[in-house]
Amino acid sequence: MPTAAVMPAPRAPLELREFPEPELTDGAALLETMFSEVCGTDVHLWHGRLSGVPYPIIPGHVSVGRITRMCGEIVDVEGEAFREGDIVAFMDVHGSCGHCYYCTVAKATTRCPERRVYGITFSADEGLLGGWATHIWLKPGTRLLRLPEGLDPAVYIGGGCGLNTAFHAVERADIAMGDTVAVQGAGPVGLSCVAFARLRGAGSVICLGAPAERLAIADEMGADATIDISKRDESARRREILGLTHGRGADVVIEATGHPGAVAEAMRFARDQGRVVVCGQYTDAGSIEINPHLDINRKHLDLRGCWGSDFSHFHRSILMLGRHHRDFAWHRLAERQYPLSQAQRALEDVEALRVPKAVICPPRG
Amino acid sequence: MPTAAVMPAPRAPLELREFPEPELTDGAALLETMFSEVCGTDVHLWHGRLSGVPYPIIPGHVSVGRITRMCGEIVDVEGEAFREGDIVAFMDVHGSCGHCYYCTVAKATTRCPERRVYGITFSADEGLLGGWATHIWLKPGTRLLRLPEGLDPAVYIGGGCGLNTAFHAVERADIAMGDTVAVQGAGPVGLSCVAFARLRGAGSVICLGAPAERLAIADEMGADATIDISKRDESARRREILGLTHGRGADVVIEATGHPGAVAEAMRFARDQGRVVVCGQYTDAGSIEINPHLDINRKHLDLRGCWGSDFSHFHRSILMLGRHHRDFAWHRLAERQYPLSQAQRALEDVEALRVPKAVICPPRG
Amino acid sequence: MPTAAVMPAPRAPLELREFPEPELTDGAALLETMFSEVCGTDVHLWHGRLSGVPYPIIPGHVSVGRITRMCGEIVDVEGEAFREGDIVAFMDVHGSCGHCYYCTVAKATTRCPERRVYGITFSADEGLLGGWATHIWLKPGTRLLRLPEGLDPAVYIGGGCGLNTAFHAVERADIAMGDTVAVQGAGPVGLSCVAFARLRGAGSVICLGAPAERLAIADEMGADATIDISKRDESARRREILGLTHGRGADVVIEATGHPGAVAEAMRFARDQGRVVVCGQYTDAGSIEINPHLDINRKHLDLRGCWGSDFSHFHRSILMLGRHHRDFAWHRLAERQYPLSQAQRALEDVEALRVPKAVICPPRG
Amino acid sequence: MPTAAVMPAPRAPLELREFPEPELTDGAALLETMFSEVCGTDVHLWHGRLSGVPYPIIPGHVSVGRITRMCGEIVDVEGEAFREGDIVAFMDVHGSCGHCYYCTVAKATTRCPERRVYGITFSADEGLLGGWATHIWLKPGTRLLRLPEGLDPAVYIGGGCGLNTAFHAVERADIAMGDTVAVQGAGPVGLSCVAFARLRGAGSVICLGAPAERLAIADEMGADATIDISKRDESARRREILGLTHGRGADVVIEATGHPGAVAEAMRFARDQGRVVVCGQYTDAGSIEINPHLDINRKHLDLRGCWGSDFSHFHRSILMLGRHHRDFAWHRLAERQYPLSQAQRALEDVEALRVPKAVICPPRG
Repeated sequence: MPTAAVMPAPRAPLELREFPEPELTDGAALLETMFSEVCGTDVHLWHGRLSGVPYPIIPGHVSVGRITRMCGEIVDVEGEAFREGDIVAFMDVHGSCGHCYYCTVAKATTRCPERRVYGITFSADEGLLGGWATHIWLKPGTRLLRLPEGLDPAVYIGGGCGLNTAFHAVERADIAMGDTVAVQGAGPVGLSCVAFARLRGAGSVICLGAPAERLAIADEMGADATIDISKRDESARRREILGLTHGRGADVVIEATGHPGAVAEAMRFARDQGRVVVCGQYTDAGSIEINPHLDINRKHLDLRGCWGSDFSHFHRSILMLGRHHRDFAWHRLAERQYPLSQAQRALEDVEALRVPKAVICPPRG
Repeated sequence: MPTAAVMPAPRAPLELREFPEPELTDGAALLETMFSEVCGTDVHLWHGRLSGVPYPIIPGHVSVGRITRMCGEIVDVEGEAFREGDIVAFMDVHGSCGHCYYCTVAKATTRCPERRVYGITFSADEGLLGGWATHIWLKPGTRLLRLPEGLDPAVYIGGGCGLNTAFHAVERADIAMGDTVAVQGAGPVGLSCVAFARLRGAGSVICLGAPAERLAIADEMGADATIDISKRDESARRREILGLTHGRGADVVIEATGHPGAVAEAMRFARDQGRVVVCGQYTDAGSIEINPHLDINRKHLDLRGCWGSDFSHFHRSILMLGRHHRDFAWHRLAERQYPLSQAQRALEDVEALRVPKAVICPPRG
Repeated sequence: MPTAAVMPAPRAPLELREFPEPELTDGAALLETMFSEVCGTDVHLWHGRLSGVPYPIIPGHVSVGRITRMCGEIVDVEGEAFREGDIVAFMDVHGSCGHCYYCTVAKATTRCPERRVYGITFSADEGLLGGWATHIWLKPGTRLLRLPEGLDPAVYIGGGCGLNTAFHAVERADIAMGDTVAVQGAGPVGLSCVAFARLRGAGSVICLGAPAERLAIADEMGADATIDISKRDESARRREILGLTHGRGADVVIEATGHPGAVAEAMRFARDQGRVVVCGQYTDAGSIEINPHLDINRKHLDLRGCWGSDFSHFHRSILMLGRHHRDFAWHRLAERQYPLSQAQRALEDVEALRVPKAVICPPRG
Repeated sequence: MPTAAVMPAPRAPLELREFPEPELTDGAALLETMFSEVCGTDVHLWHGRLSGVPYPIIPGHVSVGRITRMCGEIVDVEGEAFREGDIVAFMDVHGSCGHCYYCTVAKATTRCPERRVYGITFSADEGLLGGWATHIWLKPGTRLLRLPEGLDPAVYIGGGCGLNTAFHAVERADIAMGDTVAVQGAGPVGLSCVAFARLRGAGSVICLGAPAERLAIADEMGADATIDISKRDESARRREILGLTHGRGADVVIEATGHPGAVAEAMRFARDQGRVVVCGQYTDAGSIEINPHLDINRKHLDLRGCWGSDFSHFHRSILMLGRHHRDFAWHRLAERQYPLSQAQRALEDVEALRVPKAVICPPRG
């Protein structure tokens, strides 16, 4: 019988529960989970930092698995039908309505109020709608992608949800070829930002983060320089960036930290008429002080928030991963695998920053 | 003999001084001043709020006048030669180098470190390089424009420096046809933003400002709604904007106030995935608190600083003024004219907000 | 009983036929037609110039009417429910899939292969899916818009399908404020392009077309200059445009003619580094000769095809019409109304260019 | 005494001539030529295909050399002074005026009528203003760049003028990460386009050209697939591209061939709503036939001409070359070096397509 690790409430210990197999309606499928990721968002969920979460939930928003059952025909974006046995990833965002002002007029689908997210805004009471489980119920309309040939599912889960977010952030950063890009953060999102900035044509990528082991991964993700924030205070960091950029500051700064203060720093790391993309402030961790004259107006700065991702980011980021995974260290982001029964430990290891992310690897049926 | 109103130092009373006529080298000209504006920037100069100002100065960065002498040929952007007697305006920014990183690689000429500004960063010791004077020395390379046929110089000076700034801000706002645009500020820049937002295709323009007389001008500049900030606190203002925008917030907010707090408000007035342009923070008037999660990241906000202007803004804004001045109330912005000898009073009337801007109108030779 | 004018096949005379009232499933509605337009596309349909048309059809892709019945709740883009009696227009394009490569990755929804169009690619065998009828069956998912307050349905139908197309073309033209825009064509699309170019901030709009009566309407739609192509050959037209643009050519040219040769002309009317938008080549009317060196490469030209429209164009163009219909002559585009029984005559009057467009005005039930 | 290979007139044999050393005015320098390239443009010059060329000329628009003398201080874009002995490249375009409509309002500096080009539009009667010479006279205002550390001048000249053109074309192509890019042409420009498309984040790059040896270099420049146009006719080529792109066509096509017919092909190789950049039509080689309905309008195509380059392209392309020259085969483009005395043979070898480009390597003084 399908089994899942359920988070009953914030701070409550995870519990293994059995679920009935879902009845599949037309367009639905059942996935046998190969890997599901444990990332910082799951820690936020456990800390109760996200609003509107319908506990109890089955966490795990990004996963990869094998189709074991389907109802009716499901086709991919090219119109090719999926078959049982196919190894697929799926887009965690489900159900953007396609009708509201945000979907149609503003073309801002990541702000559609109808969208729901596997592993986050579906309740366990609704069924197997999270990845920390032996099986995942893919509702009709879920967007699936076959992994590209030659891409190991274990490497894919190394990228995981950070792929989409980082891809979107780098897209929004409008990097020009030759630009110097500073990435704040050496977690899964920041590290993928480093790689995508390189793939996008940055002339040079600087990664700011800690600890040293993560910065070592940043090197393997293509960073030209790293700055250990545990050893440099803000003014030393800024000096270092100015030193690497003819005294001007970075052309582009991408914030991927979760720390509000990083946003103010980003504005000071960027050169005049530079761009700052903020993608790391997923929860409300407090306010910051900025100076509108110095930090925005006189700098002629572009500051861009970046929320969520859409299918194009999912599709394109996996395509790029399939093309370039051998040149970057995505496999390093998810080196430690945990059986479903140890989901609690996986969560705690991520919480304690012992690993960039953890991977739940349920026993095969 | 040419006479100018000189600001000897911050807070020091203006003095009338006589100047020798400048020797004109090739490409230079002498302008007989018809009108020169007194705007908020001049108040900042008098308060000593701008750094790097080489007092004593002759204020007056935007002016209009008649060419009385020229040395060699000076051509306009179309290659047509100017003649003595032509009525012209000129670009206050002078001497962007065309060689530095900002001019050539970043294409961010408003951040060129070589640029100087008539009436602001030229010293009176260098000569007649400001508009509060009977004559203005136009150095070689100064960019002149003939006023369009039918455009009264008194109407042009109503737009004055606000034209360029507002044009640039509206350009940078990337308004889509039909967008709701909120303009914060009912001073010369804000009022020109209202008009340009309308001319750009806004579906609706809301002007926030005070006092009532300025909002009455906003109506004549094309505002669909006005909000008197002296009668509504921030939360009432926000409610009103939400009420005008289906509860979403404005598609675009343009800040043109000079008050730091307006920038934080702007971020809350904008809808998700909206745009905020900040052009009013010309001096450092302090810091503000923002919440990166709520105000930037989750909103997927675009926040854009807007510094200075270039010749394209000058050229295009005057072209639009020439085309549309009958439909908008630019003449209302500069209704009160002062002889050169009353420059001090003009400055104090602007300081006290008794007029949106004042106009210096030297005696004709 | 609902009655419609059916086009049985290309060149076959229209026939009035009775239809059973459609059974409404959830989300469907029945509209009592007030006005339906007859435009050049209908002439193309009658000439058999469009491929994939499932004759017999009920023509009439853009219409306005009153909701007489509904099944379930239908909400507008703001989430507000429609009621019986509401006067609405609806988007002619129906059923973009939201799942294919074009809808999701390329974000090119007007190229979605699943989209169908009322009055064009629905067969009369499927029911009342065209506007030349007393009633129109609105299938679930059809996008409806209430007419803005104060907008007469007869004025709306003057804009009709040309609104969306022209709005899209002008959006794609990236007009900068102050640009000179040349619009080729004085039919319904061209005339709406003139108005939208003005509303978008063009400094000057030149309309090229014929005959004189249409150019008179162009004047009322905001053209600054018109060029009668029946009296000027291509080289005289080009000379005239150069004469209006300091010898450079127009900043933007929008082709809305249907004549292939106009595209080559457009490339020669545009200035170096200008933009040409092609929206008038709706059917294959033959080939043209261009010189890639002179017309594209050396000119550094931007040439942009523009196909179809999406809901944002529909929504925003009606919003702008509601806001500005008093300042432009949209009502002049559809001055002649025909009862349903005279649909054939309406079609022939449009074919013979006796009217810019005709309006079918079925008898009220 | 400085010596140069002079092209006296079209089709006339090159002649070695001696020149006096130029008198250097402030800001001028004398360069001892290390390498100067011979490319397709030089063949056009020899064939008399370019208009406005002031024969006799010293060809050689892109070169690299050592500063032997300077007058006054010359600084780079970072403000750092050059010194005698520095190895530099220089921008072939000289003297964009900075004042005309194209330079200031249109921001289309590559269309400035004042610009002149070393080796093309300077006459030998004006002095040593071309690269096929022992020395080159760098006039004041010439934009110099130091070669990045570790970049062999012989590798730089492999990129040569193709670097700027290709960089500009790829910039203008707006490649999205993951796009399939088809590059037409395997000459120096096409091959650099392949590399820059890869560096820009293309998901896959297809190079069409001939002969086989050039396509082998295309492989080393990062092509994922090559199509030998000497073995496939247009319809076979199109089939192959459709086969590589799920039947849709390439997201982006970059034309870099010089053959007019390639432009029509490009429009058919591109997918709906794709982009075509035309940079290879440097001379007028005749007209082509296109179908505006099929090739532009219904496709919703973007077609972009690309003329010349500016300093940002020069700066950024050399920066990228310095960063990535080890991963791409730029050195392969200029394998054959010729002493100045064999310039005629070099020219003929390029004309006969025996080499992608040739390199003139004057004897060291």
